[in-house]
Amino acid sequence: MSKQKPVLLTGASGNLGRVLARDLAAQGYALRLTDLAPFPDAVPEGASFTRADLNDGVAILQLAEGCGAILHFGGCATDQPFETVIGPNIRGLYHIYEAARREGARVLFASSNHAIGFHERPQGNEAKLDVDCAFRPDSFYGLSKAYGELMGRLYWDKHGVENLNVRIGSSFPEPADARMLATWLSYPDLSRLCARFLEAPKVGHAVVWGASRNPDSFWGADHRARIGWEPEDTAEDYRAKVEHKLSGNPVVERYQGGGYTGAGYSRAAPSPRDPFALEE
Amino acid sequence: MSKQKPVLLTGASGNLGRVLARDLAAQGYALRLTDLAPFPDAVPEGASFTRADLNDGVAILQLAEGCGAILHFGGCATDQPFETVIGPNIRGLYHIYEAARREGARVLFASSNHAIGFHERPQGNEAKLDVDCAFRPDSFYGLSKAYGELMGRLYWDKHGVENLNVRIGSSFPEPADARMLATWLSYPDLSRLCARFLEAPKVGHAVVWGASRNPDSFWGADHRARIGWEPEDTAEDYRAKVEHKLSGNPVVERYQGGGYTGAGYSRAAPSPRDPFALEE
Amino acid sequence: MSKQKPVLLTGASGNLGRVLARDLAAQGYALRLTDLAPFPDAVPEGASFTRADLNDGVAILQLAEGCGAILHFGGCATDQPFETVIGPNIRGLYHIYEAARREGARVLFASSNHAIGFHERPQGNEAKLDVDCAFRPDSFYGLSKAYGELMGRLYWDKHGVENLNVRIGSSFPEPADARMLATWLSYPDLSRLCARFLEAPKVGHAVVWGASRNPDSFWGADHRARIGWEPEDTAEDYRAKVEHKLSGNPVVERYQGGGYTGAGYSRAAPSPRDPFALEE
Amino acid sequence: MSKQKPVLLTGASGNLGRVLARDLAAQGYALRLTDLAPFPDAVPEGASFTRADLNDGVAILQLAEGCGAILHFGGCATDQPFETVIGPNIRGLYHIYEAARREGARVLFASSNHAIGFHERPQGNEAKLDVDCAFRPDSFYGLSKAYGELMGRLYWDKHGVENLNVRIGSSFPEPADARMLATWLSYPDLSRLCARFLEAPKVGHAVVWGASRNPDSFWGADHRARIGWEPEDTAEDYRAKVEHKLSGNPVVERYQGGGYTGAGYSRAAPSPRDPFALEE
Amino acid sequence: MSKQKPVLLTGASGNLGRVLARDLAAQGYALRLTDLAPFPDAVPEGASFTRADLNDGVAILQLAEGCGAILHFGGCATDQPFETVIGPNIRGLYHIYEAARREGARVLFASSNHAIGFHERPQGNEAKLDVDCAFRPDSFYGLSKAYGELMGRLYWDKHGVENLNVRIGSSFPEPADARMLATWLSYPDLSRLCARFLEAPKVGHAVVWGASRNPDSFWGADHRARIGWEPEDTAEDYRAKVEHKLSGNPVVERYQGGGYTGAGYSRAAPSPRDPFALEE
Amino acid sequence: MSKQKPVLLTGASGNLGRVLARDLAAQGYALRLTDLAPFPDAVPEGASFTRADLNDGVAILQLAEGCGAILHFGGCATDQPFETVIGPNIRGLYHIYEAARREGARVLFASSNHAIGFHERPQGNEAKLDVDCAFRPDSFYGLSKAYGELMGRLYWDKHGVENLNVRIGSSFPEPADARMLATWLSYPDLSRLCARFLEAPKVGHAVVWGASRNPDSFWGADHRARIGWEPEDTAEDYRAKVEHKLSGNPVVERYQGGGYTGAGYSRAAPSPRDPFALEE
Repeated sequence: MSKQKPVLLTGASGNLGRVLARDLAAQGYALRLTDLAPFPDAVPEGASFTRADLNDGVAILQLAEGCGAILHFGGCATDQPFETVIGPNIRGLYHIYEAARREGARVLFASSNHAIGFHERPQGNEAKLDVDCAFRPDSFYGLSKAYGELMGRLYWDKHGVENLNVRIGSSFPEPADARMLATWLSYPDLSRLCARFLEAPKVGHAVVWGASRNPDSFWGADHRARIGWEPEDTAEDYRAKVEHKLSGNPVVERYQGGGYTGAGYSRAAPSPRDPFALEE
Repeated sequence: MSKQKPVLLTGASGNLGRVLARDLAAQGYALRLTDLAPFPDAVPEGASFTRADLNDGVAILQLAEGCGAILHFGGCATDQPFETVIGPNIRGLYHIYEAARREGARVLFASSNHAIGFHERPQGNEAKLDVDCAFRPDSFYGLSKAYGELMGRLYWDKHGVENLNVRIGSSFPEPADARMLATWLSYPDLSRLCARFLEAPKVGHAVVWGASRNPDSFWGADHRARIGWEPEDTAEDYRAKVEHKLSGNPVVERYQGGGYTGAGYSRAAPSPRDPFALEE
Repeated sequence: MSKQKPVLLTGASGNLGRVLARDLAAQGYALRLTDLAPFPDAVPEGASFTRADLNDGVAILQLAEGCGAILHFGGCATDQPFETVIGPNIRGLYHIYEAARREGARVLFASSNHAIGFHERPQGNEAKLDVDCAFRPDSFYGLSKAYGELMGRLYWDKHGVENLNVRIGSSFPEPADARMLATWLSYPDLSRLCARFLEAPKVGHAVVWGASRNPDSFWGADHRARIGWEPEDTAEDYRAKVEHKLSGNPVVERYQGGGYTGAGYSRAAPSPRDPFALEE
Repeated sequence: MSKQKPVLLTGASGNLGRVLARDLAAQGYALRLTDLAPFPDAVPEGASFTRADLNDGVAILQLAEGCGAILHFGGCATDQPFETVIGPNIRGLYHIYEAARREGARVLFASSNHAIGFHERPQGNEAKLDVDCAFRPDSFYGLSKAYGELMGRLYWDKHGVENLNVRIGSSFPEPADARMLATWLSYPDLSRLCARFLEAPKVGHAVVWGASRNPDSFWGADHRARIGWEPEDTAEDYRAKVEHKLSGNPVVERYQGGGYTGAGYSRAAPSPRDPFALEE
Repeated sequence: MSKQKPVLLTGASGNLGRVLARDLAAQGYALRLTDLAPFPDAVPEGASFTRADLNDGVAILQLAEGCGAILHFGGCATDQPFETVIGPNIRGLYHIYEAARREGARVLFASSNHAIGFHERPQGNEAKLDVDCAFRPDSFYGLSKAYGELMGRLYWDKHGVENLNVRIGSSFPEPADARMLATWLSYPDLSRLCARFLEAPKVGHAVVWGASRNPDSFWGADHRARIGWEPEDTAEDYRAKVEHKLSGNPVVERYQGGGYTGAGYSRAAPSPRDPFALEE
Repeated sequence: MSKQKPVLLTGASGNLGRVLARDLAAQGYALRLTDLAPFPDAVPEGASFTRADLNDGVAILQLAEGCGAILHFGGCATDQPFETVIGPNIRGLYHIYEAARREGARVLFASSNHAIGFHERPQGNEAKLDVDCAFRPDSFYGLSKAYGELMGRLYWDKHGVENLNVRIGSSFPEPADARMLATWLSYPDLSRLCARFLEAPKVGHAVVWGASRNPDSFWGADHRARIGWEPEDTAEDYRAKVEHKLSGNPVVERYQGGGYTGAGYSRAAPSPRDPFALEE
C-alpha cells in the first residue's frame, strides 16, 4: 500500500503511540490518531485525533473508514485485573478486525512477548525460540495478546485480512534492567518496523519478534524478511548500566516473560519446558 | 482424586451435560449441576442443581467450593455473534479457572475441533494432525475454545492447576453426515472419557481429540494415555447412512472445521496449509 | 435498484414483517430477515433469518453488508415505557442509518401516524393534512418515529442516503373500529408499497401516508408519486362492521392519533390546532 | 411565576450555566444548580449546587421538587459520538419533562440552530427563516435538539407543560468568526431572555431564535413577544474583527449550521432547499 | 384513608398478589397492579395491570401517582443469589419509598420472619418473641427484608411516611409441615390485614407478625391493635396432617427461620441466643 | 490472630485508611492496601497497594486470599445519592464477607453513628445509648451501615465469621463543632482500636462505639472489653474552640446523627423517641 490511504493508529496517546504519531506523520503518512485518553502532544501536521473507546464498535468502524492500514497499539498495556483487560483487549480486537475486513485494510497488532512468556530463557548454546512456538501466556495481558494473534489468524484464514503480529519485548527509551539486554526494542527500530509494514507489498499472516539487534536475544526465526525490516540498534550499548540489575526471583529469571511470570506465581515447582509434560 | 469430593458440571442442561449427569451420577459421583437454563430432567440421586450465570464470578466460585474437579461444558455451544460469545465463553472461563485454582481442583474443558478448524483435512496417506499443532480457529466460537485452552495452559504454568482439554469433534447420538465419519464422538465414549479423567492419578496440562475409534479420523497423537482412555465406539457402523451426505461447498469439504469454516467465508482463495504462508 | 442486491428486512417476526417476508420473497427478492424474536414461520425460499438486537451496532452493520435496501420495521411497535423504547427505536435507528450510509443502501422506515397524532381530525370540508405538516407526537412511541424521520433527513442532507418514511395508519387484516375507516392500511397495499419503493429509480427524502384508499382518510398530499404507488384497497368495505365502534373518549375522538393521545392525558383543555397557540 | 418558587438550572457548570447562575442569583431567584461536573465558581448567595447525572431519573425528579421552572442547559453541548449524546440529551430530556410535569413547572430548553442547520443561509433579499420551518438537523447533536423540542411539544399537547425552546445561535463573550455576525447571542441578552421567561404570565409551547439584534441574522419571526424579550446587543460591533474569518468550505458557508454541516459531509451535491426535493 | 385514592399493589402476579388483587378489588378498592411477570388472571373489575421492573425508578414513581397506599409484595420471594436479590429487593425498596414520600402515601411492606430467622424457637414456657427484638436475618433474602424495614423507619423518621411491616410467616393455602403450625398465615387473614391497613386512621411505623391465630406461634407482642386486625384462622385445623413433617436437620428445627437457616450453614456450633455472645 | 497472616485494609486512600496504613505498618503488620482511588502516600514498608473496585467480587476475593483479617473502611464515606451508595456499600459488603468466610478471616467494619442517628441525644441525666438499641438510620449512608452490621450478624450466625462493628462518631484530627465534643474519635484511639481487634483472642459478633473518652458522649455500654480497648484521648481538650459551634437547626441539635438528620428533613414534627410510637 502507499501513502494515499489514511492509517489509523490506536493507542496514540501512549508512549509508543506518541513516538509513532510523530515519526510517521513526519514521513508523510495521513494519520488518524485515536485513544481513550486525550492526546498529550500537539497533533502533528497531516494527522487528526479523535477520542474513542475500543468497546464502541460503531465508532471504531467509522474511524477506520477509508483506511488502508491499522496500527493497533490500543488497549491495556500492562497486566491488569481480568475485568479491566476484557473490554479493550478482547472486545476491542474484534472491532479492529471487523474494521479491517470491511476496509480491506491490513493490521499491525502490537502483540507481546508475554503471549509466550512461560517459555524458559535459552541457556548457553540452546536454540532460540522461533515464532511458530506454542503460546505460553504468562498473565491475562499475555493471554489477551495470544487471543489477538489468533483473531488475526482467523481473519486471514477466513477473510484474507493481512496482519503482522509484533511480539514486542521491552520498548523504552533505553534498557532498564538485565533482562532487557535480551528484550529491548528501541523506539527508532519500532518506527522503522511500522513504516516497513506499511510499505510491504504482501504481508499475509506474519509474526515478528519486536526486539532490537541484541546479542542476548531469546528469539530466533520470524517473518521479518517479508517486510524487509532489520533492527539497527542494540541493547549492548547499555550493558554496563544494567547487567547487574537482576530481580533475585528465580521464577522471574527462568522464564522469558520476566516479572509477569512471577506475579502471583503459586506453583510448587517450575513449569517444564514441554508444555504437555506432567511434572509439577 | 476419588469420589469423595464433589464434581461440578457446568452446562448441565445441554445435550452432553444431561448425558454426563445421568451417567456419572449412576457411577456414584457427587455431582453439582449448573446451567443458565433449568435442568430439564429429574435431578439424579446424589446430585443437586443450581441455576447460575457463568458471568457471575462470585456465584461460580461458591458453586465450586469443596469440589475436586470441574467438568466445564457450559457456555455457547455453537457459533454466535461476538457479543453473545464473550460473556459465557471468555469471562466464564476465567471464573472457572479461578474457582479451580482456589479449590485445588482439576478442570476438564470441553474444547472443540473448531479451535483448529482451518487445518486442511488429511488426504490419502497424509499424516493426521497431532494435538501440538498450531491453533487455527474457524469462528468466534472456535477462537473462544483456543482461548480456553490457553487459559488452562496459563493456570497450569503459573498455578499448577491440572486441566484436560477435549477437542470434541461431533458428539451426537449418531453421525449425521459424511464428515462425522471422521469426527463423531459417541455419548458412551464421552462418558467414559470423563470418568477416566476423574480417576486419573495425574493429568498436568493435556489435550485429547474428542472422537470415537473412527478409521477416517483427521486426528493423530494426543495425551489420552495419561488418563487411560480409549474410545470403544466407531462411526463406521453408520457409514452407509451418511457417507453420501456432503455439503457441496469446497471450503467446507477442504477444512477440518466443516460448516463453521464456510460460514461467512470471504477469502479469494483457500487458506494455505502453512499458517504463515503468504499466498491468498 | 434491482433484485440483484439483497434486501434487509428488520422486525421480520412481527405481523407486518411476516407479511412482507412472504410477499417479497415470492416476488424474487433476496431477503435477509432479522428480529430479536425467532421467526415464527418457515423461512421463505431465497431468504435467510438471523436473530439480532437493534442495540448491537456491529451486528446490524454486518447484516446489512452488500444490501441495496433496508426495510426497517423493527423496534417497539406500540407505546411502551421510555426505557423500553430508547434502545431499539432511538439507538437502533442510528445503527440502521449507519448501515445504509456504508452500503449506499436506501431505507424504508416504518414511521407512524403517531408522529403527528396530536393534529385534530379534519371536520366536514376541512383540508386534509399534508406530509409537510409539523410533527405533533402523541406518545414516546410517536416521538421515536419523528426522531427516525429526522434521522433520515439528516442522512439525506449530509450523506445522500435515500429514505422513504411511511406514516403507517393502522395495518391489520381488517379495520377494527370506526377510526380505522380513516387510517386502515391493508396488507396487500403495504406489500405493494414496499415493492414499489424497492423498484423506484429515485426516492430522495420522501414521506408517504400509509393508508389505503379510504374516503374518510385524514391525510392529503404526500410523495407517493415518486415511487408510483397507489393503494387499491379501501376500509369502506368494512364500514358496517365498525362504524359504531367509538371510544367514547372525547380526546381520543378529537385527535388523529386516537387511543395513543388519550393514554395518560392530563391536560386541562384540548390542545389547540396551532401548535404554537397559547391557550390551554 | 414569581421568585417564590425555586428554579432548577441544569448544566450549571458550563459556560452559559455559570453566567446564568451569577446573573439570576443576583436578581434574587432561588437557584438549584446541578451538573455532572463540579461547579467551578463560588456558589452564589441563595443558590445550592448538587452534582447529578441526567441519566439518573430519580435524582433529577428529586432536584426539581417544588421548583416552578427548569432552565435546561445540561447535556452534551457540542457534537459527539452517538453513544455519548444518547444518555444526557435523549434520556435526560425525558427526565427533565417528567420532573416538570410532576411539579407543574415550566421548561426553558436550550435548543440550538443545529436543529435546523441544513437550511440554506438567506442570500440578499431572501426571506429569513421563521420558527415554524421544518427541522433540518445537521448532526446528532442537532438531532437531539429537535428531539428535545418535540418532547416539549408532546408534554404541552398531552399534559399542558409550558416550554420555551431557545434555538441558540452562538453564545460566546464575543463573535469569533464571520458567521457569528448572524448567529451571535450575547451573554446579557441570554440572561435577560431567561429572566423574561421566568416572569412571563403565559408561555405555552413557544420557540425563540437565540440571537442578538444582528442585522445579518438568518432568522425571522418567532414567539419572543410572548415573553416580552428583545435583544439589546449586536454582533455588528465586532464586524471589523471577524468579517474576514471565513471557513473556505463551501458546504459550511452555504448552510446555517456552519461547521457542523461540513463535519463528515459526504454528499455528492448540496442538499436542496426544499427538504422533499429529489435532486442530489 | 378511604377508597377514594387508588392503591398500588406490587408483585401482583405472585401467589399472594393474586389473592389480594381478587379480594381487594371485590371490596371496591381501585387497584393498580404491577409485576415484572404478566398477570396470569383476568384483571379484576376496577383494576388495571402494568408491567414494570422495580429497578426502573421513574416507572415506579409514575405508577404510584395519585395513590394513597402501596401494598409492596414485589421483589424476590425466596432466597436467591445476591446479585438477583439486590436489584428488586434493595434498589426496588428505595423506589417504593420515594414514590410513597412524593404521594404522601402509606406503605405496607411484605417483610418476612426471615429477617429475624436466627432467633431460636421458644421452648416450653419460654417467652415468645416481640417485634422490637433485634434483627437476625437468616439469608440474603431475610437481610433484604431487614433492610426494607429500616428503609421504612428512615422514611418515617425523616419524612413522616407511614408504614406497616408485616413479617410474614408462611402464607400458603394450608400448612405444609410441622413448622407451619407456628408460622402459617391463611390467605383470608392476610387479605383482612391488608384491608385493615388501608382503613386504619393512623399507622406510624409499625411491625406486625404475619401469622394466623396459631397456638404454637413463636411470636408475641406487635402493633396489630393499631390497625385493629386479629387473625381468625388457625393452623391447628391441620395438625394431624403435618405435625410429623419434620426436617430432621437440627439447625432447621432450632431456629425460627427453618429451612433458610440451614441452607449453606457452616458454623461449628449453634449460634447462641444472645446475638452478642461470644461462643461459637 | 498474630501478625503472621496479612491484613487487608480497604478504603486505604481515605483519611482514616491512610492513618491506619501508616500506624499498622509501623507495628509490623503485613498490610494489603486497596482503594478505588490511587494511594496518595508512599506505600509503607511491608505493605502493598492494589487498586480495586468493591463492586468486583472476584478481585476482592483475590485480594483477601490468605488474609487473617479485613479492616473494611472502603465505600462511600458520606451521604450520597442512592445509586452511588448501593454499589460500594451494599454489594461491596457482600464481597467483603464472602472473602472473610472463605479465608476464615475476621472483619472490622467501619460502621457509623448514622446507623442510629435518629435516636435523640440524651439530656441531663438521661441514660446513654447502649449498642443493643434499635437501628434508626438517618440517611442512605446510615442505612447502608445498618445493612453492613446485619450482614455481619448473618455471617456470624450462619458461618461463624467474627466481626467487630465500630460505630464511628466523628474521626478527624480534632473536633470541628460542638457536637463532636460527644462524638469525636481521635486518630490514635482509632489506630489502637484496630490493633486491639487484630490481637484479640476472640471477637464473635461485637459492636463498639467509635468515640474517644469524651465526657459528653451520647453512648454507653458496648463490647470493647472483648478486645481490651479503652480510648485515651478526649474531645474535652478542644471545648473552648468548638463549644459555641452549633448548627442553629433544631432537628440537627435534637438527634444524635447531627447534620445528616436535617438534610432533606420534611417531617411535620420531630420523630418520637420510641421508634414505634404513633405521633408525628
